[in-house]
Amino acid sequence: MARDDHGVTPQSEDFSAWYNELVAKAQLADRGPAKGTMVIRPYGYRLWELLQHELDRRIKDTGHENAYFPLLIPESYLRREAAHVEGFSPELAVVTHAGGKELEEPLIVRPTSETVIGEMMSKWISSHRDLPLLLNQWANVVRWELRPRMFLRTTEFLWQEGHTAHAGAGDAMRETMLALGLYTEVARDVAAMPVVPGEKTAGERFAGAERTFTVEGMMRDGKALQSGTSHYMGTNFAKAFDIQYTSDTGRLEPCHTTSWGMSTRMVGGVIMTHGDDKGLVLPPMLAPHQVVIVPIGRGEQAEQTLAAARELAARLKAAGVRAHVDDRSQLSPGFRFNDWELRGVPVRLELGPRDLASGTALMSRRLGDEGKQPIPLASLPGDMPGILADFQAFLLRRATEFRDTHTRVADGWEAFAGAVASGWALALHCGDPACEAEIKTRTAATPRCVPLDGPPASGPCVLCGAPAAYGKRVIFGRAY
Amino acid sequence: MARDDHGVTPQSEDFSAWYNELVAKAQLADRGPAKGTMVIRPYGYRLWELLQHELDRRIKDTGHENAYFPLLIPESYLRREAAHVEGFSPELAVVTHAGGKELEEPLIVRPTSETVIGEMMSKWISSHRDLPLLLNQWANVVRWELRPRMFLRTTEFLWQEGHTAHAGAGDAMRETMLALGLYTEVARDVAAMPVVPGEKTAGERFAGAERTFTVEGMMRDGKALQSGTSHYMGTNFAKAFDIQYTSDTGRLEPCHTTSWGMSTRMVGGVIMTHGDDKGLVLPPMLAPHQVVIVPIGRGEQAEQTLAAARELAARLKAAGVRAHVDDRSQLSPGFRFNDWELRGVPVRLELGPRDLASGTALMSRRLGDEGKQPIPLASLPGDMPGILADFQAFLLRRATEFRDTHTRVADGWEAFAGAVASGWALALHCGDPACEAEIKTRTAATPRCVPLDGPPASGPCVLCGAPAAYGKRVIFGRAY
Repeated sequence: MARDDHGVTPQSEDFSAWYNELVAKAQLADRGPAKGTMVIRPYGYRLWELLQHELDRRIKDTGHENAYFPLLIPESYLRREAAHVEGFSPELAVVTHAGGKELEEPLIVRPTSETVIGEMMSKWISSHRDLPLLLNQWANVVRWELRPRMFLRTTEFLWQEGHTAHAGAGDAMRETMLALGLYTEVARDVAAMPVVPGEKTAGERFAGAERTFTVEGMMRDGKALQSGTSHYMGTNFAKAFDIQYTSDTGRLEPCHTTSWGMSTRMVGGVIMTHGDDKGLVLPPMLAPHQVVIVPIGRGEQAEQTLAAARELAARLKAAGVRAHVDDRSQLSPGFRFNDWELRGVPVRLELGPRDLASGTALMSRRLGDEGKQPIPLASLPGDMPGILADFQAFLLRRATEFRDTHTRVADGWEAFAGAVASGWALALHCGDPACEAEIKTRTAATPRCVPLDGPPASGPCVLCGAPAAYGKRVIFGRAY
Repeated sequence: MARDDHGVTPQSEDFSAWYNELVAKAQLADRGPAKGTMVIRPYGYRLWELLQHELDRRIKDTGHENAYFPLLIPESYLRREAAHVEGFSPELAVVTHAGGKELEEPLIVRPTSETVIGEMMSKWISSHRDLPLLLNQWANVVRWELRPRMFLRTTEFLWQEGHTAHAGAGDAMRETMLALGLYTEVARDVAAMPVVPGEKTAGERFAGAERTFTVEGMMRDGKALQSGTSHYMGTNFAKAFDIQYTSDTGRLEPCHTTSWGMSTRMVGGVIMTHGDDKGLVLPPMLAPHQVVIVPIGRGEQAEQTLAAARELAARLKAAGVRAHVDDRSQLSPGFRFNDWELRGVPVRLELGPRDLASGTALMSRRLGDEGKQPIPLASLPGDMPGILADFQAFLLRRATEFRDTHTRVADGWEAFAGAVASGWALALHCGDPACEAEIKTRTAATPRCVPLDGPPASGPCVLCGAPAAYGKRVIFGRAY
């Protein structure tokens, strides 16, 4: 358990305890009253909003439009696509009573919206001129979780789900990859998470999909986090929901559809990609406060440094920096420093009477790698965007190095077992689901993805020795 | 029913049919599969997003923080505040099964979030230093509706709900009025709806509130639309959920709380405040497309006007204008003009070969009040923000005039009955709920609000003759 008010169990000692304590103490989220639900507190929600804003902009820039579909879906809809209902049945929450009466047909609280969106697409699409239909929705979904985990697996979570319909397989596959590209870019350029884009093996596909693609991030305990997925559905949902169009030659054809989602799980990804023993480390692009100014001093000096801190914050804000003044004068400077370290603020500025006299503020970056530096107050607003961009780039570089040093090409079982004990293995695999299951039983590792940019490779399967499938190495790892 | 593909039943003939046809034909929304649910289509959702953006900015600028609370609330929570559960019980949707099992305690799909937020506030607040706590959430809520109506009363709707806790009644009342002020401002300055802020009479209060305030808009059929509400809860929820703080003198005190909400109902308000027989009329601040450019011509000329339209659109976008090119060359110009009229686009620009030759575009404002004017292409991007601002101001002026000419000071029953048949009555009322009920039975009119800025007035009740309450006249009207 925690050492003091700001302490958390060290990562290396118990990663899981570290994570849980940090989520609570950094005020990112609390448990909700119903099993497995989560309350996202303002600090955590702001982080999500900033991510959402970046992703939403890219979704719109690539021609998609936002819409909103109902939360409650007739139970019969889910049964129309056989694989889909089989995959989701164990996780459903069911409304049986409403308005004081038992419903004739129970309503499912959406676990995902392919079915209801498929039904509406069938009404909206008639001609090839209606295609492609490029939709997205920001929504909450509910999946009953047996082992809930804040942000990573909660009974309810927030996400966007893109749903598109196309005239042919080629267009739909290009869309599937476009969405995967957006996720790769947002993870890398916004969350500083160097995710690996790749394809899931058959056993890990979305219920009802022909092909499932994923971006996989490596957490600081060496485990993988599936951080976004994009699915090519073929004509499975089009046939189940009559999503058809008349081609330019007058033939009635089923559409090819896609769906893709990224969720509040990403908040967990940010925590586990960058955090350290002292707490969160937030990439500036997602930090609710990019800079916190801590005024120091007593009596009259306290008033002077507080006034100077407020003026500096206003100048930083005018320069486009999210600056916050910690005016909790009842708390000691040390307590406040620890608090903002725990909460992962990228840059801290101390402003005491002596700093004020010399016209500087004492700057510390969250990782403490450059110690404390005095920076002239006059040039701070101009310098800060660059300092933050450097820190953002540094975090991505650090995470990339961590991922690369914890990923090993593994030929032979011992090398494989060693690699997945602390990170990822790049291994040859036969593609047989039974062999995948045996690997999971022995090591808890699963195939995370067949990376898109993996070089060609062939040889015997790392476990059973049969000829490798996929034409390249597969990433195996333990996962959240 | 509709006359042709773009026609809708005239407003004057059947306002309700006009509304329903318009929502569908303008592609704002469609019915969802479950009873009373609604699918918000991209055109309607974009309008909501633009409103949401304006409201969210003001909520943040006044010191509130966004958070997110669970959708599913234990049934027992709702019972803790007696008036609250009594008010909401008939409208609840209940999850009884989840994860393949019957739940020990049923979960309510939130109809509003006072209960679950109250529970969390009780955990987060301990000292007066934790106050005020100023929260907001953007969410979906479910209330089972017997007579659903698109945007106005749907089983599920989208809204923001502000929830705040304060150390005293004075602070909480100031907050209640601040939120009401935000709604008045957003309705007026963004939606061009000249709403009247006022207080609800006792019979129209929110379930569990001490005082309920509202902003009421007048629709073009003379009916009122409650467009946002703000509630002072006193210590009712604080006592039910133990939301307490230690004062600076060390005493344990209950907090005073507020809640306030504005919803997708506002989309219905915009339709019914500004629309006419030809369709929607959108205020520029909420119009998904502020300007639509329709290129005209055949063959080679079509290519030239389309290229010029795209170039013009790019220049308009660079000037901050939401411009759209209608490149559906397979449709006649007349068809496209009618389509954008139906969809309420504020400004239409026609661009034919002759326009191009003279270096102009033919501009029509949506209300056709100034006919078609040739405007030089060179100056259009510079002029357009002003043209749009004028149109926005014009719509507010027109709606204000409509409201004022349909609001009458009514003394005596005949004058009252006449006023509420076509608009609002400003009447003296005794304040007796039985008398309110009798007025409703006779005229379908209810007290909409006691307007904040109404001048002092006294005299006999318009129906029963007893001395008037409230110290001022009350607005009565039929309502949605």
